[in-house]
Amino acid sequence: MVFKVGVMGAAGFAGVELVRLLTQHPNFELAVVTSDADAGKAIADTYPAFTGMDLPLFTNHDDPALFECDLVFLAVPHTVALKYAPPLLEGGVTVIDLSADYRLKDPDVYEKWYATKHTSVDVLANAAFGLPEVVRGEIAAAAETFAAGKAVLVSCAGCYPTATSLAAFPAIQAGLSAGLVVVDAVSGVTGAGKKATARTHYCFADESVEAYGLASHRHTPEIEQILGISGQDRLVFTPHLAPLKRGILSTVTLSVPEGVRIAPEALQELYEGFYADCPLVQVLPAGTSPKTASVAGTVKAQVSATLAANGRAIVCLGAIDNLCKGAAGQAVQCANIVVGLAPDAGLPTVALPV
Amino acid sequence: MVFKVGVMGAAGFAGVELVRLLTQHPNFELAVVTSDADAGKAIADTYPAFTGMDLPLFTNHDDPALFECDLVFLAVPHTVALKYAPPLLEGGVTVIDLSADYRLKDPDVYEKWYATKHTSVDVLANAAFGLPEVVRGEIAAAAETFAAGKAVLVSCAGCYPTATSLAAFPAIQAGLSAGLVVVDAVSGVTGAGKKATARTHYCFADESVEAYGLASHRHTPEIEQILGISGQDRLVFTPHLAPLKRGILSTVTLSVPEGVRIAPEALQELYEGFYADCPLVQVLPAGTSPKTASVAGTVKAQVSATLAANGRAIVCLGAIDNLCKGAAGQAVQCANIVVGLAPDAGLPTVALPV
Amino acid sequence: MVFKVGVMGAAGFAGVELVRLLTQHPNFELAVVTSDADAGKAIADTYPAFTGMDLPLFTNHDDPALFECDLVFLAVPHTVALKYAPPLLEGGVTVIDLSADYRLKDPDVYEKWYATKHTSVDVLANAAFGLPEVVRGEIAAAAETFAAGKAVLVSCAGCYPTATSLAAFPAIQAGLSAGLVVVDAVSGVTGAGKKATARTHYCFADESVEAYGLASHRHTPEIEQILGISGQDRLVFTPHLAPLKRGILSTVTLSVPEGVRIAPEALQELYEGFYADCPLVQVLPAGTSPKTASVAGTVKAQVSATLAANGRAIVCLGAIDNLCKGAAGQAVQCANIVVGLAPDAGLPTVALPV
Amino acid sequence: MVFKVGVMGAAGFAGVELVRLLTQHPNFELAVVTSDADAGKAIADTYPAFTGMDLPLFTNHDDPALFECDLVFLAVPHTVALKYAPPLLEGGVTVIDLSADYRLKDPDVYEKWYATKHTSVDVLANAAFGLPEVVRGEIAAAAETFAAGKAVLVSCAGCYPTATSLAAFPAIQAGLSAGLVVVDAVSGVTGAGKKATARTHYCFADESVEAYGLASHRHTPEIEQILGISGQDRLVFTPHLAPLKRGILSTVTLSVPEGVRIAPEALQELYEGFYADCPLVQVLPAGTSPKTASVAGTVKAQVSATLAANGRAIVCLGAIDNLCKGAAGQAVQCANIVVGLAPDAGLPTVALPV
Repeated sequence: MVFKVGVMGAAGFAGVELVRLLTQHPNFELAVVTSDADAGKAIADTYPAFTGMDLPLFTNHDDPALFECDLVFLAVPHTVALKYAPPLLEGGVTVIDLSADYRLKDPDVYEKWYATKHTSVDVLANAAFGLPEVVRGEIAAAAETFAAGKAVLVSCAGCYPTATSLAAFPAIQAGLSAGLVVVDAVSGVTGAGKKATARTHYCFADESVEAYGLASHRHTPEIEQILGISGQDRLVFTPHLAPLKRGILSTVTLSVPEGVRIAPEALQELYEGFYADCPLVQVLPAGTSPKTASVAGTVKAQVSATLAANGRAIVCLGAIDNLCKGAAGQAVQCANIVVGLAPDAGLPTVALPV
Repeated sequence: MVFKVGVMGAAGFAGVELVRLLTQHPNFELAVVTSDADAGKAIADTYPAFTGMDLPLFTNHDDPALFECDLVFLAVPHTVALKYAPPLLEGGVTVIDLSADYRLKDPDVYEKWYATKHTSVDVLANAAFGLPEVVRGEIAAAAETFAAGKAVLVSCAGCYPTATSLAAFPAIQAGLSAGLVVVDAVSGVTGAGKKATARTHYCFADESVEAYGLASHRHTPEIEQILGISGQDRLVFTPHLAPLKRGILSTVTLSVPEGVRIAPEALQELYEGFYADCPLVQVLPAGTSPKTASVAGTVKAQVSATLAANGRAIVCLGAIDNLCKGAAGQAVQCANIVVGLAPDAGLPTVALPV
Repeated sequence: MVFKVGVMGAAGFAGVELVRLLTQHPNFELAVVTSDADAGKAIADTYPAFTGMDLPLFTNHDDPALFECDLVFLAVPHTVALKYAPPLLEGGVTVIDLSADYRLKDPDVYEKWYATKHTSVDVLANAAFGLPEVVRGEIAAAAETFAAGKAVLVSCAGCYPTATSLAAFPAIQAGLSAGLVVVDAVSGVTGAGKKATARTHYCFADESVEAYGLASHRHTPEIEQILGISGQDRLVFTPHLAPLKRGILSTVTLSVPEGVRIAPEALQELYEGFYADCPLVQVLPAGTSPKTASVAGTVKAQVSATLAANGRAIVCLGAIDNLCKGAAGQAVQCANIVVGLAPDAGLPTVALPV
Repeated sequence: MVFKVGVMGAAGFAGVELVRLLTQHPNFELAVVTSDADAGKAIADTYPAFTGMDLPLFTNHDDPALFECDLVFLAVPHTVALKYAPPLLEGGVTVIDLSADYRLKDPDVYEKWYATKHTSVDVLANAAFGLPEVVRGEIAAAAETFAAGKAVLVSCAGCYPTATSLAAFPAIQAGLSAGLVVVDAVSGVTGAGKKATARTHYCFADESVEAYGLASHRHTPEIEQILGISGQDRLVFTPHLAPLKRGILSTVTLSVPEGVRIAPEALQELYEGFYADCPLVQVLPAGTSPKTASVAGTVKAQVSATLAANGRAIVCLGAIDNLCKGAAGQAVQCANIVVGLAPDAGLPTVALPV
């Protein structure tokens, strides 16, 4: 079975990663790629990795061909998805949204962090959250709806929330965290997007590490929502930038509640059990740690959990490719599930060994 | 005034950084460089940045010329300093030790973490700790002893402890921390040393971020000692490796005690006050964050402190060059103080702007 | 149709790239991987990208299971292939050799450049050279032999010769070169192999460019042989090392013979015509240049040819992934052809766009 | 003796490198830094390496304080120097120009390559070319003029011409070149300037090597002029971009004339003799090759010359820091000479060893 798909915002980094994945996927036919800035141009003009391939040219966001697709992926900035998702859904087109517009269940929280009015709360109310290994029910329900012939919207988790939640959710859900949840995550530069800025300039990014967005990054409420700690002032999320292209390593330190202790073996079993049916999440053996290079270019995640401070703390680690498992790959994984395929169908799962 | 100095272990990364600094320092004359593995060779053979310079050849560690020096820097592995420091001191030579052998005040703690017997506890008892901006009294006392004509031993702080303590000490000393002290620090690859291993191989280190040494890194007890939290099971120290040559960024998250709150301005003032007389530590203005590239190649540190989690947490950041302020630069800074010079005398303080 | 294959020397960089390619290829079943140094260990212990995959463990080079394979890839150092190829062939196993042992048609040249006796000149005499887009007849003949039920040996071209010959062969064959053939090629660090050395240490390779092997690199006679200029003292081959993992860019400058002139359009047509039936070689449009990142991780090559010096010179550029098209990918391409598959069957052809 | 100096265009990469060098130079007082785009801002806002230093704020290019300087460095784009240099000279201010506006002795050549009218050919006629180790007479004459109380203009060589000429000039001057002069040079990304573009975006520049500007780079006529081969259609200059910040390695291959042969020792002596009195140019011993990292951050150059193709060719290598010896460092070196100081006075000459 082959589904016709489109990508809005295909010229950005997440968008072009969707192009990479969809053109190599046996069950999706990439029919439309839009970019208001690049309409009329070839993808290979900007991304020479596609030179010589037979791909559609960029068209404008209002290309009516989008409505002839079975699914449309939205890789557009926040607020732009607010504009395009509702009409697509009304037109019967299933939407896989990579933007932040339908992630936060509470529109007030959205409006506070994104400083914009949420204009389609009805769509938001029915959106399925897209982080299949952690938020399991919503995507399953969306698949049933789709199977029943109705269009659905899946709102895929952000990059930092994906790495962080995969690392920390099993322990938090098991009651192993009290007080602060400290998230120090390191991202490669693709996370800063395609726009050429001082931040993304090679000569400023290379050979340096820095933290940014202290106490103010927009992924904060999303992580709180997934981890179930919204409104508790417990999350301290500090993103960092390091000189590599792809990858996020999220290091989450949990404070084990007074009176609670867990053995290392039990912690390991907790994680292995939680992800037992998740082919795309690898729980590493005790004593080994995730490396971003081990999952670069793939839709896989590596996680580990280790006791520290004589059992008073747990250090949870999660490594993903921010553009793939953290964005485009997860979106296609969600699309796979929605249309009834295996989660990893047609997706790259083996990184370059070196 | 010019002092004759030697460097033991000059072929390693910290040792060769000492060579760089000492050959450009107007008050030190580099007379002896030792390396058992490279004896007889020229420094430029391994480090072509020195090609064409008139430098001493490597000699063996037992070169008697060391005893004709005013000061000797020990850039040797731990346990090796245990062997060489006592005779030098007895010979009247002041020792600036970059190894871990005299850092931990409690020899039992040393023996536990380094799995070796401490064979000169008398020297340890009189060693001055070398992190001048934080541990202020010991180095000052050492300078007085030296001025009185006696040899002293300064045991310089490690790279991670330096970045971490500069970031977190003012807040912890002010009573702004309860419960866990979470340290996630990122180091460049020079921190892994000169030895060619799988870890330092370009193709394994490049384009990847990973954590290592979870709950087991030897800098743990040293950080606890400096921060005054030894034996409390509060420190969670997770070092990380990122693809750059020089630099450590230490991100320290403190949990503000229940019932304690501090205004952002007061936090800023606390830090600016604490480092008011420290020319080599820059407290960044609120809203800006340290970057390792801003201090690379220099003996400077940049720090900042920011409230998070609605005032329940403080994120302290410290950036240094691990080889310079975190090793050789701090050692020369300590030597400067001991011999009566300004702390920053003859040291590089301006990084490459780009 | 599925062929059983083995990889000797699977722990090295070319070997592990073979593992990556073969485990994802629908027509090859990877049955044996050997490494004398790592026998008994899992591939994922050294290359965590394979964590969680069901792969054979390393065995010794003398594993008899190799003789049950249809094809064996030799990713061993030169001289080691001399030892293992003949018995495999005698045992009816087709050999795809990535070493240098059977590349040079003249055993005297081999002995001069590799300082070792060639011990199987009979095998050498029948070896097919493996650079299918340039040396077309030998691999085609090998396929016929294999189809007739006989084992063959394909000696795959080296990395620099591949990039260089793809760039320069059409122009040289067309008579557009007199005098020196100047090859300045830049390689990523994977080209230096897995061994941890001063050269491959991150801190020596990062942020630097250097030339090496001046007038003495062993790929010199191989390039001369492919280009048909052996024994003419015309080739000046200067390899360079740059700070990236994968990729070779070969820049070949030809001196157009006196009295010969070619129009830019004719030069472009010459190249497009030459590679018209080669799906893995892209001749770039005039005005664009190959980038190594555009082919990283793939078996593709990008080439271009441009007139310079007012028509007196031609600058030919060729970009490949040194481990893939320059080693393992080309080997599988050759295996594809030998067993009757399309050259690009089962091979990655789309690089990460960013 | 201290001279008051200004830098026009101080916000660009060459300009800010001038700021770095001049603020650490004991004989120059940096009084004025101009940038039309950044007027009113602090240098540290863009370049945090200067945080905490007491530096002048950016002013506009028409800041009258420039006329109170003894020397003004022009680090502005070409054509902008044409506008500002003449009035400064008339005002008695010596100009050290880093732009291309006064490099080409023949204004017709300038107009052809820069597509703009040369509006001050009288200034051009008196300009001293600034590449002191190669073009020796002009800068010496300028120093005499300055000593006589008159303002002079020094037009500093470009980055590629500097690395290339230092490498190749001694051999060419000695008659060791006929036919093509093939220059393949590799530059770090600082060479592309401060502007954030697709080319300088970390994610496009990292992990890739490419050639650019084939047969069309504007440094072509400048190299021809210095090497004395203008109008001969002999130069083939192919610049490349590699993933590092600072550094140019220029590989120049010369075709030794028929009938001419030189022994390796004689070639080495030729180079050592040519640079005998040049403290900033190191001729490397035979068998070793320049590395850009060995001169990064310094005003030094490393060169070597090696016979190839059985004596029919010479491979000349030159490594510099493109921003320092290739721009700002050479400019200060020229200023040193003009005002009567040693060429290397106050300049950094020792690179980071690692």
